[in-house]
Amino acid sequence: MPSLFNTIGLIGKFGDPGVADTLTQIAGYMRQRQLRVLLDEETAKLVPTNGLEIASRRVIGRQCDLAVVIGGDGTLLNAARSLVDFRVPILGVNLGRLGFLADVSPAEIPHSLDAILAGSFREEMRSLLHAEVMREGRAVTQADALNDVVVHKRDVARMIEVNTFVDGQFINAYRADGLIISTPTGSTAYSLSGGGPILHPSLEAVILVPICPHSLTHRPIVVGAESEIEVILNASNNTQTQVTCDGQISLGLEPGDRVMIRKKRRKLRLIHPANHDYFQLLRAKLNWGADPEESPFIG
Amino acid sequence: MPSLFNTIGLIGKFGDPGVADTLTQIAGYMRQRQLRVLLDEETAKLVPTNGLEIASRRVIGRQCDLAVVIGGDGTLLNAARSLVDFRVPILGVNLGRLGFLADVSPAEIPHSLDAILAGSFREEMRSLLHAEVMREGRAVTQADALNDVVVHKRDVARMIEVNTFVDGQFINAYRADGLIISTPTGSTAYSLSGGGPILHPSLEAVILVPICPHSLTHRPIVVGAESEIEVILNASNNTQTQVTCDGQISLGLEPGDRVMIRKKRRKLRLIHPANHDYFQLLRAKLNWGADPEESPFIG
Amino acid sequence: MPSLFNTIGLIGKFGDPGVADTLTQIAGYMRQRQLRVLLDEETAKLVPTNGLEIASRRVIGRQCDLAVVIGGDGTLLNAARSLVDFRVPILGVNLGRLGFLADVSPAEIPHSLDAILAGSFREEMRSLLHAEVMREGRAVTQADALNDVVVHKRDVARMIEVNTFVDGQFINAYRADGLIISTPTGSTAYSLSGGGPILHPSLEAVILVPICPHSLTHRPIVVGAESEIEVILNASNNTQTQVTCDGQISLGLEPGDRVMIRKKRRKLRLIHPANHDYFQLLRAKLNWGADPEESPFIG
Amino acid sequence: MPSLFNTIGLIGKFGDPGVADTLTQIAGYMRQRQLRVLLDEETAKLVPTNGLEIASRRVIGRQCDLAVVIGGDGTLLNAARSLVDFRVPILGVNLGRLGFLADVSPAEIPHSLDAILAGSFREEMRSLLHAEVMREGRAVTQADALNDVVVHKRDVARMIEVNTFVDGQFINAYRADGLIISTPTGSTAYSLSGGGPILHPSLEAVILVPICPHSLTHRPIVVGAESEIEVILNASNNTQTQVTCDGQISLGLEPGDRVMIRKKRRKLRLIHPANHDYFQLLRAKLNWGADPEESPFIG
Repeated sequence: MPSLFNTIGLIGKFGDPGVADTLTQIAGYMRQRQLRVLLDEETAKLVPTNGLEIASRRVIGRQCDLAVVIGGDGTLLNAARSLVDFRVPILGVNLGRLGFLADVSPAEIPHSLDAILAGSFREEMRSLLHAEVMREGRAVTQADALNDVVVHKRDVARMIEVNTFVDGQFINAYRADGLIISTPTGSTAYSLSGGGPILHPSLEAVILVPICPHSLTHRPIVVGAESEIEVILNASNNTQTQVTCDGQISLGLEPGDRVMIRKKRRKLRLIHPANHDYFQLLRAKLNWGADPEESPFIG
Repeated sequence: MPSLFNTIGLIGKFGDPGVADTLTQIAGYMRQRQLRVLLDEETAKLVPTNGLEIASRRVIGRQCDLAVVIGGDGTLLNAARSLVDFRVPILGVNLGRLGFLADVSPAEIPHSLDAILAGSFREEMRSLLHAEVMREGRAVTQADALNDVVVHKRDVARMIEVNTFVDGQFINAYRADGLIISTPTGSTAYSLSGGGPILHPSLEAVILVPICPHSLTHRPIVVGAESEIEVILNASNNTQTQVTCDGQISLGLEPGDRVMIRKKRRKLRLIHPANHDYFQLLRAKLNWGADPEESPFIG
Repeated sequence: MPSLFNTIGLIGKFGDPGVADTLTQIAGYMRQRQLRVLLDEETAKLVPTNGLEIASRRVIGRQCDLAVVIGGDGTLLNAARSLVDFRVPILGVNLGRLGFLADVSPAEIPHSLDAILAGSFREEMRSLLHAEVMREGRAVTQADALNDVVVHKRDVARMIEVNTFVDGQFINAYRADGLIISTPTGSTAYSLSGGGPILHPSLEAVILVPICPHSLTHRPIVVGAESEIEVILNASNNTQTQVTCDGQISLGLEPGDRVMIRKKRRKLRLIHPANHDYFQLLRAKLNWGADPEESPFIG
Repeated sequence: MPSLFNTIGLIGKFGDPGVADTLTQIAGYMRQRQLRVLLDEETAKLVPTNGLEIASRRVIGRQCDLAVVIGGDGTLLNAARSLVDFRVPILGVNLGRLGFLADVSPAEIPHSLDAILAGSFREEMRSLLHAEVMREGRAVTQADALNDVVVHKRDVARMIEVNTFVDGQFINAYRADGLIISTPTGSTAYSLSGGGPILHPSLEAVILVPICPHSLTHRPIVVGAESEIEVILNASNNTQTQVTCDGQISLGLEPGDRVMIRKKRRKLRLIHPANHDYFQLLRAKLNWGADPEESPFIG
């Protein structure tokens, strides 16, 4: 039976030699199945490469049919941003701690990989955001985000003052520690800590969550995913402000800068085991069943 | 010029003779424009009818091209549920206090009516929910809601225990004062008081908000509007529980009952003045501009 | 060695025969120690009395040096209100599920009882509230509460409208589902679900928490325990409203009634094992350590 | 009649020449009353001094019977910290926008000053916090705070990890954007934005509010004002962290540092007009009366 996936990229958690065991196990499994394996060049610096072919992220993007990412959700966010434009599907394997995105546990290997390579899996399309910093009419920097774009101060004792627009319509002038613009994927991350709702991943929507807003009436707002969101820094703002994508990429801002946030055209192909259940994951991650009195009473 | 709207229904706030002035003003205006006016029979009990034709809600639904509802958002919710199946567009005129739905103020009459009758207006389609109570496999009662369907206890000192499903997938067993299932329209009503986010009215989504949940990790969840939501009462539940639609219609529940909540196929045609701006309304209703320090710093 | 505690009252969870084993174990232990045991008359209806002396709550109050309450926090709340005026110290034994008040687990018996009878324990003084309903200048009903006094509607689809005063000073006119007035003991119960803070039990303070308030700016307020809190029902209020103490005692309210809430002069003597640690209990009850990433990094 | 207040210090908002009018008016009024006036040396750089005696903050502290602070709450926070050890009472005059602390409006001058100088005023004692950074057993830096001590990251994309203790008892290991330790005075400032309760100023208590905590169960905790709070930075923490007092003073932190926070022994003497009403101020500042439906219904 020809596999759907013939060339597999392997990407490990950045700077963490602790991925070696799981990575070696997966690489061995792949080679035994006669699959071509490309090892991410950053990961290769940390672990024994065992003769694996080493490749840049770009080569992985171009040549792989599947990328297996080993680490936590942070590692997957990074891999997703670098591979989304190549349309490579991604499978997340965690290091023992269940992730929202890295939802295959080491204990489930090779069982899960068997099933996935045999074509039994679930593929989800996850939206990303694209943020552009506009200065004097020109885009000066830009980046993608799978979880969230956050506009926030660097100088901690001060707040940001931003005017926010949706599709050219003025929403509000926020005075806050920051403003989170989150995808449904990001709704269980920083946005949730900031008081945002949980958005089902299939929802075509974006959340705006002000962080510690000065006014108690500034609540999270959910708008359609096609909305163009514009955040304008008060020109007289003397606070050091920046834009952060997924908490991993930072873009500097100057007074008067405009941040344009739109849905990225290309979506992430996220692979799950066939029995993946979003709400089960949610219950596990949020400890909904931890309290004996909270347990479901289904016969 | 032939008007889009030839027969106009007039519906006043239930039990409030205070609508008489605004209602008489609007009725006079309509008759002067040679339009046929049908006065809601319940409203006719409260105000001088001045020779207006009196009609049941059903006749208004069948014969009118436009219903003008005079009162607050509560009056509009009631009118919406009774007219939605007849596809009659609704215009809400408030009694001096701006509503989220009744957004034309008496001071804007006749100016607003002139424009609307001349065809200058904005029509929005607003989703409703349909709730059915299932007992032993049969639907025993049902009702529509423009804002929200709420499952809650009647006996105040006790909580409800419900299992909740989305499209057959188990979400969670809630122990709470109640559970709000809200449309985007309802997101600025009871759901907001319960900690829910604001949803833009154009969003095809539904929010689930547990009221005073026993677990701090039970947060509002937003799912797609096409989702079928099922709330099952714990069979051993000895608390008196009920379902309320828009806070206006109550359906009794017995232990083991299932409440099925789906998007209603037909949407409400809600008429606004042409310059209607949702975020401006939001700012006005939530006092976002009330604090001098909160004001926008645009130009 | 003469014991501090010679006559012991035993009170079981109301209506729950499941307390029999733990109760029999404790009664046997006490009799073996030659202590006089009085069994609560309501409990005696549910379990084999094994020749134990049966007594009313009042007799338990007058004659016992210690009351051992077997059940959950609800059972302890009830016992506390009935015994506080007799100054009988109370020890709470749970039925396997740790309580905030019933913090001795069945597995810790007889070890815990040995230590406590030997004088090694911690006694905490917990404040109660006293609520009086005033009508036309006279107190018509009254009750105590160890957790909270809640003013709320009975008719679920409506809100209450109350004016609230502290020491005669007007605080605010609340429009809400209800208003919780909670002790520090109650701060981890209903008040927490309603968005209130956690108050250390030693704090001399009372929290006011509006339930689902119509205004987003109505936040929990903490005032001194000596404050006299007055809640006045809007005279034109046509919602059925009531006052509930600890979720267990209900007092009816009529439009125009005033509810006076003061700290009860007498405090509850709550007995804990000597190694009792409030924050450890809090961490256990709120699952603060449940997430591997949340664990303390000491040592 | 000899005045209680013979030497008056005048302190204006830092760096704001806009205080000149109000300051000149107050200075003129004081001189007309034959009172000795000392002008703060920093303020003297901004406004015409009109022959006023110029003094350092220390001299104002030593020689004045009253300090009149002109500006917003931020100005008063600064003045309070510099004068509290000299026991000089402080009166706050705002620049047109009501403050929680600067509650005399320019329009109320000279009426308010007349009354205050005649001895008709209310003096409140407000608690401050004292924060010390301990490194290898020694205090390396320290500062006072009237509102709050905040431990937070400088590097915005990362969280802090701190172990927190009250009187040596471990509370919790927080993973959050930061941790606010607030006085009752600060409870209506940053702490409120972070989700904390409002504490009446007379309450002897301190609030701990985690900012955007990773766990949804980490809620604000209120403990007694005499508590010694200790916040220990994770030794492996590689995030830049700092302590900020009142958002105005910053102290750097290194991994393993301990921050000790105690109530300052000396309290601030805060002067209000005799008719000062805390809850009225709260209603005005939080717009509790802004919504017509929210207004009190007292006859």
